[in-house]
Amino acid sequence: MLGILGGGQLARMLALAAAPLGVKALVVDNAADACAGQVAPLVVADWTDYAALEQFAAQVDVVTFDFENVPAETAQRLAQKVAVFPAPRALAVAQDRLAEKTLFRECGLRTPEFMAVDTRADLDQALATVGAPAILKTRRLGYDGKGQFRLRALDDADAAWATLGSQAAAHGLILEAFVPFERELSVIAVRGRDGEFRTWPLTQNWHTDGVLSLSLAPAPDIDALQERATQLARTLAERLDYVGVFALELFVKDGELLGNEMAPRVHNSGHWTIEGALTSQFENHVRAVLGLPLGDTSARGLSAMFNWIGELPDAAPVLHAVDAHWHDYGKLPRAGRKVGHATVCAPDSLRMVERLGGIAHALNRDQQADPAVRELE
Amino acid sequence: MLGILGGGQLARMLALAAAPLGVKALVVDNAADACAGQVAPLVVADWTDYAALEQFAAQVDVVTFDFENVPAETAQRLAQKVAVFPAPRALAVAQDRLAEKTLFRECGLRTPEFMAVDTRADLDQALATVGAPAILKTRRLGYDGKGQFRLRALDDADAAWATLGSQAAAHGLILEAFVPFERELSVIAVRGRDGEFRTWPLTQNWHTDGVLSLSLAPAPDIDALQERATQLARTLAERLDYVGVFALELFVKDGELLGNEMAPRVHNSGHWTIEGALTSQFENHVRAVLGLPLGDTSARGLSAMFNWIGELPDAAPVLHAVDAHWHDYGKLPRAGRKVGHATVCAPDSLRMVERLGGIAHALNRDQQADPAVRELE
Ligand SMILES: Nc1ncnc2c1ncn2[C@@H]1O[C@H](COP(=O)(O)OP(=O)(O)OP(=O)(O)O)[C@@H](O)[C@H]1O
Ligand SMILES: Nc1ncnc2c1ncn2[C@@H]1O[C@H](COP(=O)(O)OP(=O)(O)OP(=O)(O)O)[C@@H](O)[C@H]1O
Repeated sequence: MLGILGGGQLARMLALAAAPLGVKALVVDNAADACAGQVAPLVVADWTDYAALEQFAAQVDVVTFDFENVPAETAQRLAQKVAVFPAPRALAVAQDRLAEKTLFRECGLRTPEFMAVDTRADLDQALATVGAPAILKTRRLGYDGKGQFRLRALDDADAAWATLGSQAAAHGLILEAFVPFERELSVIAVRGRDGEFRTWPLTQNWHTDGVLSLSLAPAPDIDALQERATQLARTLAERLDYVGVFALELFVKDGELLGNEMAPRVHNSGHWTIEGALTSQFENHVRAVLGLPLGDTSARGLSAMFNWIGELPDAAPVLHAVDAHWHDYGKLPRAGRKVGHATVCAPDSLRMVERLGGIAHALNRDQQADPAVRELE
Repeated sequence: MLGILGGGQLARMLALAAAPLGVKALVVDNAADACAGQVAPLVVADWTDYAALEQFAAQVDVVTFDFENVPAETAQRLAQKVAVFPAPRALAVAQDRLAEKTLFRECGLRTPEFMAVDTRADLDQALATVGAPAILKTRRLGYDGKGQFRLRALDDADAAWATLGSQAAAHGLILEAFVPFERELSVIAVRGRDGEFRTWPLTQNWHTDGVLSLSLAPAPDIDALQERATQLARTLAERLDYVGVFALELFVKDGELLGNEMAPRVHNSGHWTIEGALTSQFENHVRAVLGLPLGDTSARGLSAMFNWIGELPDAAPVLHAVDAHWHDYGKLPRAGRKVGHATVCAPDSLRMVERLGGIAHALNRDQQADPAVRELE
């Protein structure tokens, strides 16, 4: 039995991938209607309900995460009872933007300029060092662009502090230089309990309002970058003795890779691997944490993923298209919520442009697909 | 909500395919440990527990089948409350070997010689007409070669009657000529609520002791047969106003198709479509019964499926192989029970021979793969 902390769409897709391997999933979430509960039994409990969590731990062989911001204390307590992968220490590094960027540099991965900010005075000093434009972010608990403030110029400091200053004490802050990047890429990687390591081909990502909007994989023209990204991901994974799938989010600036952040779990930019790769990120995460051999991570062809945010569009254009795959997470619509995705596969760029453009057009969402279509053409 | 009668591996794989479409499944089985219950809520009830079935019907939008031998009475009662696909009438024909073979002939599909047998005297007369070798089968409730007796010569009649005669009154019997076929094929077909119709490429099947052992798809050298099989399946489906997936099992004799039987549900010989086709039989069955557009049924490349009977072999050789996929149904081992399967995909015959042979060899099951390897070479 595989225990999963957090019962959102990642847990749901993990449970769906676990079933064919003969692995049952047991999910913990504090919401009784968590969408993973539709496909696996659900324990409703808070992250600090240690009694419930201990009972949960007694039922499972391994614990893993759908939600990366499970409190370190919770992860550590569980790790005393049962195998937890990734290990609490690796999780802690990936939960903290300062720790992860520091680690990136130690591993030879450049990052945007950054500086820790604990006080209003720190912010001025950081701005003087890092320069503007810049982004002030909470060190912990940020996701989907939440907990961020963009500073266009030095005199945005007051506004930034007014928005995020109150979180400085609890979660810490970090100021990062805003990078006018050429492209955003991510590498999804997996490491087994025995150290076996694999990456999927680099994915190119486009965000809207800080939230992933579209992914394209393999990212076009990455020959020079794939090997470097793989080697960096491997170095990171080995430094953390990481077990399971993680994503390394990268910027490309002047043709060079910069590290943005590391997500210690299966990742939105890897959803295309369900249909687009020989083994999906979800299946390989299950295999990794259970100590099974890893599956081949090659891409079958080209894949593009539309993220559905807030509410699902009409499914029909996707259901009618060739080699297009619909994913409804079974969630209620709500502004900003990730409620589903669709993956479009094609054997070559020409047909990808056709299919992707066709679906986007039918949905009146040309602008969601346009950047990828331009990249492919 | 999709209601499924029967909670075995077919219901399990239907539920797993339904989830990404945002379709929840509710399963009925009389066994509390039915394996589909691991991935969907399970109602434990008998086929004649009409109170429980009515409550079940009130919760779902559509009812379909994992188990084709649901009593006609049960299907009809449900059909008065809720949409049932395939419709009870189509199910009834497919449940009866005499009715289905009669229909095959009406649709222009030849069959082995056959004759209904109700009494011991009928058996002699049927043997005189059909000749030996022949097979005596129960008309209803047979599966996996159960309820069959092979007669080598005319004087096996007593032994055949001793074995199956007691079932003549309840289930009816049929005597069929034994066909020294060249190959066994199946065509998996799907028809939507609006009459849209598709078939997957023909599959070649090998049986051991009446149970499917290995499938290979697309079956080699079928150019001449594919169109004919598709046209026959379409005629059958239209005659029955069939909705959903079904399998038409065929013998090839002197290069010609003979109809063996029709399975009114997703079928073991279509399991390869999960990874090997653009849309799986499970997803298209869900789409069909819910009135959604059907997905493309093209094969991605070559696929071969090993059936695991009785108990699972070691998973490692499959997990280590490229583009090979493990399916553990979460059942307890038991002689003759279908407990799992593995699908091996490859872009061409050469690599299929390599992968299939490699896995079979590692499992010490060369003889399970040999006939397919010979067919490919
Ligand atoms: N320093 C930066 N320079 C330029 N753009 C940035 C920078 N930091 C973040 N962004 C943009 O904002 C997006 C979200 O930022 P980030 O990855 O830090 O957020 P997050 O809240 O952790 O989101 P997620 O975990 O969903 O990726 C990035 O993918 C990128 O498009
Ligand atoms: N008339 C026949 N001539 C030659 N072989 C036959 C004949 N009938 C059945 N067989 C062999 O036995 C196998 C099982 O028979 P049949 O399809 O009737 O059984 P079943 O119990 O309905 O099984 P299933 O539903 O699993 O296919 C066939 O696939 C074929 O290999």
